Amino acid sequence: EIKAAMAAGDEAAAAKEQFRSKMNGALEQRLFYIPSFKIYGGVAGLYDYGPPGCAVKSNLQAFWRQHFVLNEAMLEVECPSVTPEVVLKASGHVEKFTDLMVNDVVTKDCFRADHLVEENLERMLADPMISADKRRELEDMLARLEEFTPEEMGDAITKLAIKAPETKNDLTAPYPFNLMFPTQIGPSGALQGYLRPETAQGIFVNFRDLLYYNGGKLPFAAAQIGQSFRNEIAPRAGLLRVREFTQAEIEHFVHPEQKDHSRFAEVADVMLSLFSRDAQLGAVKKPFPMTIGEAVEKGIVANQTLGYFIARTQTFLEKIGVNPERLRFRQHLQHEMAHYAEDCWDAEIECSYGWIECVGLADRSAFDLKAHSDKSKVELTAYERFAEPKMVETLVVEPNKKDMGKAFKKDAKAVTDALMALCQEDALALAAKVEADGKAELKIEGGSVEILPGMVKIAMETQKVSGRNFTPSVIEPSFGIGRIMYCMFEHSFYIRPEDEQKTVFRFSPIIAPIKCTIFPLVNDAGMNDLAGTISRVLATEGISSKLDTTAVSVGKRYARTDELGVPFAVTVDHRSLQDNTVTIRERDSCDQVRVAVDDVLPLIKKLCNLQATWEEATAGLEKQAAASD
Amino acid sequence: EIKAAMAAGDEAAAAKEQFRSKMNGALEQRLFYIPSFKIYGGVAGLYDYGPPGCAVKSNLQAFWRQHFVLNEAMLEVECPSVTPEVVLKASGHVEKFTDLMVNDVVTKDCFRADHLVEENLERMLADPMISADKRRELEDMLARLEEFTPEEMGDAITKLAIKAPETKNDLTAPYPFNLMFPTQIGPSGALQGYLRPETAQGIFVNFRDLLYYNGGKLPFAAAQIGQSFRNEIAPRAGLLRVREFTQAEIEHFVHPEQKDHSRFAEVADVMLSLFSRDAQLGAVKKPFPMTIGEAVEKGIVANQTLGYFIARTQTFLEKIGVNPERLRFRQHLQHEMAHYAEDCWDAEIECSYGWIECVGLADRSAFDLKAHSDKSKVELTAYERFAEPKMVETLVVEPNKKDMGKAFKKDAKAVTDALMALCQEDALALAAKVEADGKAELKIEGGSVEILPGMVKIAMETQKVSGRNFTPSVIEPSFGIGRIMYCMFEHSFYIRPEDEQKTVFRFSPIIAPIKCTIFPLVNDAGMNDLAGTISRVLATEGISSKLDTTAVSVGKRYARTDELGVPFAVTVDHRSLQDNTVTIRERDSCDQVRVAVDDVLPLIKKLCNLQATWEEATAGLEKQAAASD
Repeated sequence: EIKAAMAAGDEAAAAKEQFRSKMNGALEQRLFYIPSFKIYGGVAGLYDYGPPGCAVKSNLQAFWRQHFVLNEAMLEVECPSVTPEVVLKASGHVEKFTDLMVNDVVTKDCFRADHLVEENLERMLADPMISADKRRELEDMLARLEEFTPEEMGDAITKLAIKAPETKNDLTAPYPFNLMFPTQIGPSGALQGYLRPETAQGIFVNFRDLLYYNGGKLPFAAAQIGQSFRNEIAPRAGLLRVREFTQAEIEHFVHPEQKDHSRFAEVADVMLSLFSRDAQLGAVKKPFPMTIGEAVEKGIVANQTLGYFIARTQTFLEKIGVNPERLRFRQHLQHEMAHYAEDCWDAEIECSYGWIECVGLADRSAFDLKAHSDKSKVELTAYERFAEPKMVETLVVEPNKKDMGKAFKKDAKAVTDALMALCQEDALALAAKVEADGKAELKIEGGSVEILPGMVKIAMETQKVSGRNFTPSVIEPSFGIGRIMYCMFEHSFYIRPEDEQKTVFRFSPIIAPIKCTIFPLVNDAGMNDLAGTISRVLATEGISSKLDTTAVSVGKRYARTDELGVPFAVTVDHRSLQDNTVTIRERDSCDQVRVAVDDVLPLIKKLCNLQATWEEATAGLEKQAAASD
Repeated sequence: EIKAAMAAGDEAAAAKEQFRSKMNGALEQRLFYIPSFKIYGGVAGLYDYGPPGCAVKSNLQAFWRQHFVLNEAMLEVECPSVTPEVVLKASGHVEKFTDLMVNDVVTKDCFRADHLVEENLERMLADPMISADKRRELEDMLARLEEFTPEEMGDAITKLAIKAPETKNDLTAPYPFNLMFPTQIGPSGALQGYLRPETAQGIFVNFRDLLYYNGGKLPFAAAQIGQSFRNEIAPRAGLLRVREFTQAEIEHFVHPEQKDHSRFAEVADVMLSLFSRDAQLGAVKKPFPMTIGEAVEKGIVANQTLGYFIARTQTFLEKIGVNPERLRFRQHLQHEMAHYAEDCWDAEIECSYGWIECVGLADRSAFDLKAHSDKSKVELTAYERFAEPKMVETLVVEPNKKDMGKAFKKDAKAVTDALMALCQEDALALAAKVEADGKAELKIEGGSVEILPGMVKIAMETQKVSGRNFTPSVIEPSFGIGRIMYCMFEHSFYIRPEDEQKTVFRFSPIIAPIKCTIFPLVNDAGMNDLAGTISRVLATEGISSKLDTTAVSVGKRYARTDELGVPFAVTVDHRSLQDNTVTIRERDSCDQVRVAVDDVLPLIKKLCNLQATWEEATAGLEKQAAASD
């Protein structure tokens, strides 16, 4: 029984491999991707986008900007990739953005420790003969692998007797390798820098200016689209784990006690596949369908703002062509979340590599702003006016200027500064000591002084306060553009049943690299002219088209346009020259209709703006047999 | 007389300073720019774009893509910034992309040697009492500064007795400092990388694939928009010399003997201000007006393709708002050009810092493809079929297999390979030696062998050849997006004569960060609703607008929209609620017209697409007095 299941599993894995290899062939053949620096043998984890890939990516980013930035009047910024160390120390990346690495003790070759352990565990688990106890132990190890300390990882390597993959030499103990690309800023070598590992930090450090730009009001969101860099130890999984990639990140700043969202009602009915913490830990371990409205109401998703962005992410991904049946939102387990995080969900898309994290949605509380405020000593807060002024117990510190001057002379200012800088606890302790002992020592810059009775008044007083400064919380939706694009490619790719050579990408018109192919049926001056005119008319409304005047058969030209995922094809034929009509073909159904030349632009425009489906837009039009195929 | 001229010069310089400081104030105040990592004290040469700056930049790039990439069906690619050393060794950047640096011998502080010498020369030249001979000598030194070898620069420092600026310590001898940011790719430290100093190399290394994508046909152009990085020694000139910036580069590949351009007639009448080599070296030293058609015909510009791109650059810059009277094309002097370059022109834009190089247009011949082909050993050529097959003298090398095998046994293949790899000259020399001496030595991998008569036939033979492989030339237009944007800001900025506080950017509608402000005259539910409706209608056609419902005066709201350079403002007033009309105001003339609500979209759309000027579009419409100001 186990063997049969494993055989079925092998078969499914082989089918996935075959699908992927076929699709990657189609992507490389038409230059959607090119391995970077290919003539020099390439560099692992670096890829170029060729012409159609570049167009798809640019369309995807433009739609992201429209769906998120413009729709909600977010403040978009653009910050450099080169980042000084201090920023990434504050964010924790210098200390913690690491993977565990081991070296072959002889060749010094580098390996990711978790990969080696994972491969060994999977190989052992593939053996149907191991005991149930052993299986449970190995599965538990596999599940916790990502959290292992260097010591635990070392223990696992020792226990499983793992050696270097090819040489079978011993391995060093695992140690953390920082995944940021290091660089030097300026000529002296004195300013350590890194390439940013995410775009978010550029937004956090600008919080003060952005809040000011927004008239001091919360909530508001800032966004950035740009390159991020991760110096992976051993990039694998092809286009999914790369060393340089485009991120699109949003930081939505909000009052920590007011996380409702004014437009939540617009999305409350959006249906999601939720893989909550409980579902993951329960017996069934399956996601369940639920509207975001219900999920927030039941407390499964922490608050409306986080829920709003989860729902908006769902509609975004559906619109660009991700299959909703292969999309789920997985909640982070408690141990996956940082201590400060309130709630985190990943949009995971299923592809031939499994379920891939493509968007992270996290309520990070006030962590990031506090971290940068602490490090930079610049206050990163917003102000709120209370509905009613409040009476608040406040520490009052009032140095006696005359006594200060007399006792400390030129140090008087330093002493005053030191007194004013005391926290409540220290100030009260000082006052108590002066009262008890008749004197107390105070540290000032470059030494210490003795405070005597009467020099300073320190007390708690009740004061009327009309507002306060506070550190906002941040809700962060973070999109990996390249991963989304790759998964979208997989969901869009198919092979026509009648011919294994005919590959198609069923791109949404908003994503397709070219919206329309236009071709004259045969090489004829009149047909060529009319085709050129149609192309120019489409261009006036920004609809990209490609004129194909090669003399090959219409069938071949359709196949070529299918390979690029062009949704519509206009053919100019003999009849066109008589009655000024042309045919339009839809890519996936291969349906053709005949329309007047003047109707081409409004029809294509409506289809490309998703204002109508093909069926709706062509209802009542003359159908054309696909004779020319 | 000299003193008066100098006083006038000082005054002009002061006016420029004042203009710049006023404009930079306006740019920073509205967050067009933000010094990067400002809360940590910033990093010289790194700037963020805030919300309106980001929108302007995004519009500028979109228009560039439309004007160049889409208009000419260029092949757009996107390559990584992280680049392995081998690529930049081939391109010459590792060896030559340097500035001369000196250090303070005590503090080790770094300075750009040419900056120090330049400052000293300018200070000395400012002295009206120096002799004419001395002046000539110093001016000559200043003109040649950029070409100085380290030795010449060192001599100049010694001669002028230059010390470190503040400490007055001695300086080290000048030495070259490479301006590329270094990094390490992968964990082992074995793969040296750099951040790319230009986007062009990513295109060159993809030439083979791109040619294939284009059906093997020339000419074609590829393009890339992306970040480039230069680790400047001491960034100054504010936003003009930065360490990370966006480039937009085109590589137009062409047959070296066919540099005519099929669309040259479309641009032949474009009038340019040309600062040719002759004009720079002549007595007058002034640019002259000439059409590009005439300039190519007279041989002032080397060929039609280079001329085509010069003209297209002129129209691009004019359309985005560069003042044509402050734009010129300066030809590189012979000594400024690399030895392989055929002709180079810079589009220079005048701003408060002087004439700034913003676009470089160069005919680089076959240099780049040859360099990468040599280094990678991958042939980067195109094929041309001759109109008629040609009879060509060709080297023929035919080893006698049987003799080879007998004489060299297992080395036979190595000997054959070595023979086939001989260049024509070496092959003929070998044959001559065998004939003369009865034997000749041949080097093979790992040793050498003796070639005897009869072992190989080496001769020149006439063969029929129907085509050939050749290395294409490349014409490279290279745009510095940030510099163009900064100069455009300067040309767009003005202060309303009636009020020094009222600053305006006269952005072209295609560049403006927001196309339209919409505001209700007073805070009224009906007015607010109508304003919201108009905003949504504009959004359906992708026209960005900003609703301003703050209760401040209309005059103040106009001033705010002027500061952002918003070209049009729609006001909803009391009359709107009665007759469904609104007013539209044009930013620069402050003219207002009254139009029906349904006409707002078509009118604004026509204006934003530059299909009509304000005067044309509003002819016949009811003018509205600007009473509400």
